[in-house]
Amino acid sequence: MRSGVYTQRGVFVCLEGGEGSGKSTQARLLADRLTAEGYAVRLTHEPGDTAVGKELRRIVLSPETGRLAHRTEALLYAADKAEHVETLVLPALERGEVVVTDRYVDSTLAYQGAGRDLDPAELEAVARWATGDLRPHLTVVLDLEPAHGLGRFEERDRIEGESLDFHQRVRQAFLDLAAADPDHYLVLDARAPVEEIAGLIAGRVAPLLEQAAR
Amino acid sequence: MRSGVYTQRGVFVCLEGGEGSGKSTQARLLADRLTAEGYAVRLTHEPGDTAVGKELRRIVLSPETGRLAHRTEALLYAADKAEHVETLVLPALERGEVVVTDRYVDSTLAYQGAGRDLDPAELEAVARWATGDLRPHLTVVLDLEPAHGLGRFEERDRIEGESLDFHQRVRQAFLDLAAADPDHYLVLDARAPVEEIAGLIAGRVAPLLEQAAR
Repeated sequence: MRSGVYTQRGVFVCLEGGEGSGKSTQARLLADRLTAEGYAVRLTHEPGDTAVGKELRRIVLSPETGRLAHRTEALLYAADKAEHVETLVLPALERGEVVVTDRYVDSTLAYQGAGRDLDPAELEAVARWATGDLRPHLTVVLDLEPAHGLGRFEERDRIEGESLDFHQRVRQAFLDLAAADPDHYLVLDARAPVEEIAGLIAGRVAPLLEQAAR
Repeated sequence: MRSGVYTQRGVFVCLEGGEGSGKSTQARLLADRLTAEGYAVRLTHEPGDTAVGKELRRIVLSPETGRLAHRTEALLYAADKAEHVETLVLPALERGEVVVTDRYVDSTLAYQGAGRDLDPAELEAVARWATGDLRPHLTVVLDLEPAHGLGRFEERDRIEGESLDFHQRVRQAFLDLAAADPDHYLVLDARAPVEEIAGLIAGRVAPLLEQAAR
C-alpha cells in the first residue's frame, strides 16, 4: 500500500461523520462560500454522483434489496468510488478546481470496516485500489454522539436502522483515522453552531487554496 | 494471497473460454448428465445469477451504460462474484451438491486483466477477496481461436465488440492460468464434436465425485 496520492493541482476537501452530523449542510456552505470568492467549485457526494453511482446507490440503500453479502456491499461502494474518482473528482482537480465531497473512502472504512465483520486491512486495500489511492488534502470529521444524530430522523434507511453500538463503532473509526494523520484532518464538534463550524472549516481550507494557487 | 480454498464437501466445476466456445452448452450437458446420475446439481453462471447480479449484469453489459471506468467494471464484476459465492455457490457446496458454473474468477482475470490496462496482480487480489479465494475443484477451458468464436454471433454486446487482439489476449490468459495449475484445469479444443467434449469433461469430473462421496 502506497502512503496516498495527493494531486498537485486543485484542492480536494472531504466532509465525513455519522448520520445527522450536518455533513451535507457544511459541504454546501463551503462550496457556496468558495464559489462566492471566485473559485471554480465542484460539490459532490458518495455514493451516487455519477450515472452508475446513482444506480448502485439505489441498489445498496433500498430496503427492497434485503440482506446483501457484506463483501458485495463493500464492492458496490468501491465501484461507485472508482467511477466517481475517475470521471468526476480527478478531472475537476486536474482543471485546478476545488472539489468538496460529502463522504469518501473513510466512510467505507468506518461503516463497512468498523461496523461489519470484514477484515479492515483487506477492505482498505480494495477501497484504495478503487480510488487509485487518491486522498483529500483535508478531511473534516463532524463528530457527534450517535444517539443525538440518529434522533434527527423519523424515517431511517437500511444503514441508519443499524444498532446504536454499530454507529458508535463508526464514530470511533472516524476519530481513529483523524488521529493517525492530523495534517490532513480537522475534527469538529458537530453540536457547535452551524456558522461557527463553517468558519472553522473555511479557516483551515484557506491555506490549501493559497498553496494550490502558487 | 493464500493459495486457494477448496471445499471438502460438494464438487465445484467451472466452464471457461472465449465467446462462442460452447461453455454454456457444455455446462448444461454436464449438469443434465449428473442430474440423470442422481446427483443434486446447481447450474449457474457469472455474471448474474443472483438478484443483485442480474442488476449488475444489466449495468455492465448494456450498450446504454457507455464507457465505464475499468476499475468500476472490475469492481462490479467482483461484487457480482461476492454475492454469487456467498448466497449460492458456498451454500450448495456445503449441502454436498455439485455446482457447475458458466464463468468464474478466471473470466475476470482474462477479460479485465489481460484485456485491459489494470495491474493483473491487483485485479486478482480484488477478485480473490470477493470470493474468499474459493477455487473450483476443476476448471474446464474450452479453447478456441477468437476469430472463429466471434464469427458465430450476428449481434455483439459491448464486450464482444472489442478488437480481435483483445480476444486473443483473453485466450492466452486462460491458457496461462491452466498451465500454471494443471491439477485443477482441463483444456479442450472447442472445435471438437459437442458429444466428445462432454464425454471428456464427464471423465475428468467422475473421480472428483467419487472423492467427494468418500
